[in-house]
Amino acid sequence: MPVKEEDFSEWYNEILQTAEIMDVRYPVKGLYVWFPFGFAIRRYVYDLLRSLLDRDHEEALFPLLIPKSEFMKEAEHIKGFENEVYWVTKGGANELDVPLVLRPTSETAIYPIFKLWIRSHADLPIKIYQIVNTFRYETKHTRPLIRLREITSFKEAHTAHTTWEEAEKQVKDAIKLYKEFFTRLGIPHLITRRPEWDKFPGARYTIAFDTLMPDGRTLQIGTIHNLGENFARTFEIRYEDPEGEQRYVNQTCYGISERCIAALISVHGDDKGLVLPPEVAPVQVVIVPIIFSDERREEVLDAARSLFEELKEEGLRVVLDDSDERPGAKYYKWEHKGVPLRVEIGPRDLDEGVYTLARRDGEPKYRVRREDILDEIRDAFSDLGMCILKKAEDVFRMRIMTCTTLEDVEKATKKGVSRIYWCGKPDCAHEIEERFDLSLLGVSEEEKDRGACIICGSEDSRVSYLARTF
Amino acid sequence: MPVKEEDFSEWYNEILQTAEIMDVRYPVKGLYVWFPFGFAIRRYVYDLLRSLLDRDHEEALFPLLIPKSEFMKEAEHIKGFENEVYWVTKGGANELDVPLVLRPTSETAIYPIFKLWIRSHADLPIKIYQIVNTFRYETKHTRPLIRLREITSFKEAHTAHTTWEEAEKQVKDAIKLYKEFFTRLGIPHLITRRPEWDKFPGARYTIAFDTLMPDGRTLQIGTIHNLGENFARTFEIRYEDPEGEQRYVNQTCYGISERCIAALISVHGDDKGLVLPPEVAPVQVVIVPIIFSDERREEVLDAARSLFEELKEEGLRVVLDDSDERPGAKYYKWEHKGVPLRVEIGPRDLDEGVYTLARRDGEPKYRVRREDILDEIRDAFSDLGMCILKKAEDVFRMRIMTCTTLEDVEKATKKGVSRIYWCGKPDCAHEIEERFDLSLLGVSEEEKDRGACIICGSEDSRVSYLARTF
Repeated sequence: MPVKEEDFSEWYNEILQTAEIMDVRYPVKGLYVWFPFGFAIRRYVYDLLRSLLDRDHEEALFPLLIPKSEFMKEAEHIKGFENEVYWVTKGGANELDVPLVLRPTSETAIYPIFKLWIRSHADLPIKIYQIVNTFRYETKHTRPLIRLREITSFKEAHTAHTTWEEAEKQVKDAIKLYKEFFTRLGIPHLITRRPEWDKFPGARYTIAFDTLMPDGRTLQIGTIHNLGENFARTFEIRYEDPEGEQRYVNQTCYGISERCIAALISVHGDDKGLVLPPEVAPVQVVIVPIIFSDERREEVLDAARSLFEELKEEGLRVVLDDSDERPGAKYYKWEHKGVPLRVEIGPRDLDEGVYTLARRDGEPKYRVRREDILDEIRDAFSDLGMCILKKAEDVFRMRIMTCTTLEDVEKATKKGVSRIYWCGKPDCAHEIEERFDLSLLGVSEEEKDRGACIICGSEDSRVSYLARTF
Repeated sequence: MPVKEEDFSEWYNEILQTAEIMDVRYPVKGLYVWFPFGFAIRRYVYDLLRSLLDRDHEEALFPLLIPKSEFMKEAEHIKGFENEVYWVTKGGANELDVPLVLRPTSETAIYPIFKLWIRSHADLPIKIYQIVNTFRYETKHTRPLIRLREITSFKEAHTAHTTWEEAEKQVKDAIKLYKEFFTRLGIPHLITRRPEWDKFPGARYTIAFDTLMPDGRTLQIGTIHNLGENFARTFEIRYEDPEGEQRYVNQTCYGISERCIAALISVHGDDKGLVLPPEVAPVQVVIVPIIFSDERREEVLDAARSLFEELKEEGLRVVLDDSDERPGAKYYKWEHKGVPLRVEIGPRDLDEGVYTLARRDGEPKYRVRREDILDEIRDAFSDLGMCILKKAEDVFRMRIMTCTTLEDVEKATKKGVSRIYWCGKPDCAHEIEERFDLSLLGVSEEEKDRGACIICGSEDSRVSYLARTF
């Protein structure tokens, strides 16, 4: 395999095919096929996301096709999308009376219905989500899981509240939820408030999650928007307050796409292949019987089968690889697929009443007593999850450089992200963006310290981040 | 509510809105919105379907958009769909070079990839499925969950095999799987081989599952197709057999859509609302505290809360309705939503150490000891599932009439389905179809007895079914 840090693009393309994540041979640009193994990762990742959302959201489903008339209502929103939507213009041999847009995101499909669902303050808050395919007519270079014409797995949440303050609180709750999600995937992230010129069309402001890819570029992996009353005014979404007054709702929306899986693969993978946190690994444990002689073959296989049944019974996702390949070939294959834990069982292990465990994260192999194996596996899972996260965070931190001068920024761009102070003025941002061909991700949501703007020197400027972006 | 048997159409439309299954107010014909409650039913029904498929299929995901060039390859297949597909012709402001079809079903998206995945007999069989949205430009009257422009929940399975015999066996396995699925939903069904003129375009033959709706019309709820080598020849899907010969694969495909949920609602519902089998009910148990006086209010509520926690802990989907409404209003509300079991807890129950159970299927209320409640609930679930199925089967059988004369058929059409003998000749079928404005569903797959054709009198004719269809 190509070395991830040296030629990330090659490494990424190769692993998608060899680990059977995405097949890129579909005959339309920007559309890809999920292999069953890739789709299994997708299933566990989105099951996790669902389980977090289900705590206080409800899942619903709205149509893919949006009539032009609804789509064109919110001026700022259209401007953001009009050059990148697909149009359905024909049904059978007939021209459609009203052309239909394939949703690029669902505000204009959902909010006419919110108008019907919301009557009184007692109907609020509403918090729904859906997991759907959305479409962008990308003219840029497309890339599997990252820049797509069909985003197959867009989780979009939409909420409505009585007041601005309630919507603000929802933004904070959504940040917390996304932090938990990405932390459980072991994906380090920056949380920034996007500058005005880079916010979601129609939003009051946008909070974004970015992670850092092995080539030093950042990837936006989640966004949260406070829409204020913007869409409510366009779609006339009003409620009656306790005093009988008609008021506009305040709304938020927030989304995560299969970019979370692109990040999962890219952040953790190594030159042997995928590295997956146990929680989302399609195969969590592989059992490899080590057979030297025909004599003890059945004995070893029986022990392997019995462990397989026991682990399956416990709800673990386990594979017994009793194929005719050599153990080395099996190790290679399952390591490539990111299986967190391997159990090796040979005749000597049986004699000594111990089995050998090998972790995907490269810790030395170790032997555990047969009767302790289930506890040991669970311990290993929990430790693996933490080690994967810690390793990713170490790499992440190493690639973020605090810069106080333009020379610092020049050096930093080769490695990753520049942490600067920025006064908030567009001119200062654009100057530094253009000088180094970088993007200002935005102002940190979490860091409260202040300093001098790297361009104009204004004191009391906020922590901000600059990066090359995907 | 309208009476289901007397005005099914009204009853159906009303229950979809009042039980919050589908919102029909989306501003495009044939497109509907899943309410969260409806979507929860969808989730449990499709979780069941997934669990059955996962035994020996793998889930994958293919693109929605099919290039015209691939779509137009299989002549017979196109003919079946060309007047009912949506065309995407524009991206942004540009005309697309190659127009794209919104999949009406995915053969022409999947099989070019099967060509790449299949090389050798060792790659076979392949058994994959996906759950996706598909599209038909319906010009007929549309109806939520039944006749749609966006089918939101199409489960389509596609398999490839070395031989015709293997494909035949797969058809039998798929029939078995669908039988288990519909039986667990309590939905009675006929399984027939569709006549030649009604098979899937491109298939060698089609097996269909039909259920009977309350208005006496049948609804097709599942189809299974043996494609033979038809698509393999078009898409050049070949494998090398053990002797080194290149051979075409034999394929099958089979699908189920959200019509299964239309059937679930329509077959079991009554004049109080939904009736749901416990396995797929979003709420399986509702607890209603019965409070007469403030004096014992907290005591009753505590008992209700403690039971709620206990049932939740056990993994049951339970709601505690401690709102201020009167018990009668609560009963009405949750019965309408099809909750299988209600637990009532009042002061007298506490004194006597018993709780009252009420089943949604109309069995008399009964009281059970506090300490037995979990077992009693589980017993009630299992019995409810069986009773719902049995009741549905009784109604189903009553509406199928064995007809030996045309007068019998005339009588039968008013009530439901005619069971006849048919010689297999198209002329005989068309004569009776036209005379009574009925459709021949096809020849029974399960009944082996023979008799005289109802039209031409040929002996040794097979059992067949005639019905008005949706």
